[in-house]
Amino acid sequence: MGAVEAAKLGAVAVVIRSLALPQDDFPHTGSMYYEKEIAKIPAGALSTNAANELSEELKKGKVTFLLEMDCRDYPDVQSYNVMCEIKGSESPDEIITIGGHLDSWDTGEGAHDDGAGVVHCLEALRIMKELNIKPKHTIRVVFFMNEENGNKGGIGYASWTKEKGEKQIAAVESDRGGFSPRGFECDGSEAQLQLIQQFSKLLKPYGLYHFEKGYGGVDIGPLKQQYTGIPLYGFVPDSQRYFDFHHAPSDVFENVNKRELELGCASMAAFVYLLDRSL
Amino acid sequence: MGAVEAAKLGAVAVVIRSLALPQDDFPHTGSMYYEKEIAKIPAGALSTNAANELSEELKKGKVTFLLEMDCRDYPDVQSYNVMCEIKGSESPDEIITIGGHLDSWDTGEGAHDDGAGVVHCLEALRIMKELNIKPKHTIRVVFFMNEENGNKGGIGYASWTKEKGEKQIAAVESDRGGFSPRGFECDGSEAQLQLIQQFSKLLKPYGLYHFEKGYGGVDIGPLKQQYTGIPLYGFVPDSQRYFDFHHAPSDVFENVNKRELELGCASMAAFVYLLDRSL
Repeated sequence: MGAVEAAKLGAVAVVIRSLALPQDDFPHTGSMYYEKEIAKIPAGALSTNAANELSEELKKGKVTFLLEMDCRDYPDVQSYNVMCEIKGSESPDEIITIGGHLDSWDTGEGAHDDGAGVVHCLEALRIMKELNIKPKHTIRVVFFMNEENGNKGGIGYASWTKEKGEKQIAAVESDRGGFSPRGFECDGSEAQLQLIQQFSKLLKPYGLYHFEKGYGGVDIGPLKQQYTGIPLYGFVPDSQRYFDFHHAPSDVFENVNKRELELGCASMAAFVYLLDRSL
Repeated sequence: MGAVEAAKLGAVAVVIRSLALPQDDFPHTGSMYYEKEIAKIPAGALSTNAANELSEELKKGKVTFLLEMDCRDYPDVQSYNVMCEIKGSESPDEIITIGGHLDSWDTGEGAHDDGAGVVHCLEALRIMKELNIKPKHTIRVVFFMNEENGNKGGIGYASWTKEKGEKQIAAVESDRGGFSPRGFECDGSEAQLQLIQQFSKLLKPYGLYHFEKGYGGVDIGPLKQQYTGIPLYGFVPDSQRYFDFHHAPSDVFENVNKRELELGCASMAAFVYLLDRSL
């Protein structure tokens, strides 16, 4: 809302301090918007170091600030969700969708947001295959497109599966980074929450203790409109370092810890396995 | 035990793959020993990358391995534990000791092992002072010397406080790195464990859920011999990245995440506050 609020006060442009904790040189991008009737002024984010420096200069007196930006909106182009699945052995028509999103902000690689989520879900399916586990229901992995910029992949998938007459019974998303796992949240009813709280005893020895009411994810959100009462589950890794990398040039593969990523994959596989057996 | 076992088989030297998960160029040092009657052969650790390379070369055929080492044991010198405390407002003669260790292996800075533990404990005391909390019992922070190489600081402190006739009622140690907090372990009785499990409800919203039977720490260990039945508590951070840095050149300040370190400090402060109120 920075651009709107600053323009109301007569600003010609707005720069904000990146919404991030580390003191470094990486500006963090993210969503912003304009309002009708309010002047559309340029808006940008500074790295925390740059913001500190600017702040120090401003304390000394008048500052001339040169803002040069070359970002722009291009028209939308056609793109696609990517899907793969293992057919259910007992109820193939009942689908558990698990997913993350393929797209990312252009400053980094989107390694945590949401490369890690994509890997968690793909690995969950691969692990089940490797262990020769035959799920009762169809487990479908969806790599969603366009989460960051309108959620067209999530909306499109929900409409598409509904139009096909498919039966979606649950969905799980990973979109909070590739950090050490802590648990899963549930957006649904008390019964749907209690279902996964039963897993707690099995998973606590592996450090997963958080099974609480909460949020599923942006990509799977539209399934709720199409399938009333469907439970949406969100994977919860440790959150403390997420905003070190979020929407920044530092969100690269090198900053994902291999072991933490693998533990997330194992957690997703175990959770989906238990969910499939319980439904 | 590598040097002993290899010498039994006639080896002239032994190199091991570093006991670490990351694929990098940092060898990890650590404790080793010799046995009487068994030849004392040189022993060293390779980085994981170097070990992989050596392994690949060995697959191709005979390899000449040049081992050059210049490490040595110097005689012990005098050094000191460092202590500070807040006197108890109700029972100043009853002491809760909290601590970490000042010494480290010489390859890195010992930032996680155990600079972080030292900071956790010092900060716990500073936070109590800042918040004008008057503990019932005396809270004493001890920075122990020589944990890595004989635990002389821990042994010396336990003897010294016993000889002075001091009353030690509990001890807490942080020596598992500066990572995101997960909880505390207790080495003592069921009642001593249950005491801290009561804190669980207060601390779970902050991500501390692990209050289990376990280990206190090397430095505070000798207090158990001097004070029968004293409960020893160990701070438990997330463990997944500890062996990325353990006893390696990568255990430096830059690899401690500021926010995670601060959360550890807050956890230690909260735990010691609750412990003081409960005893």
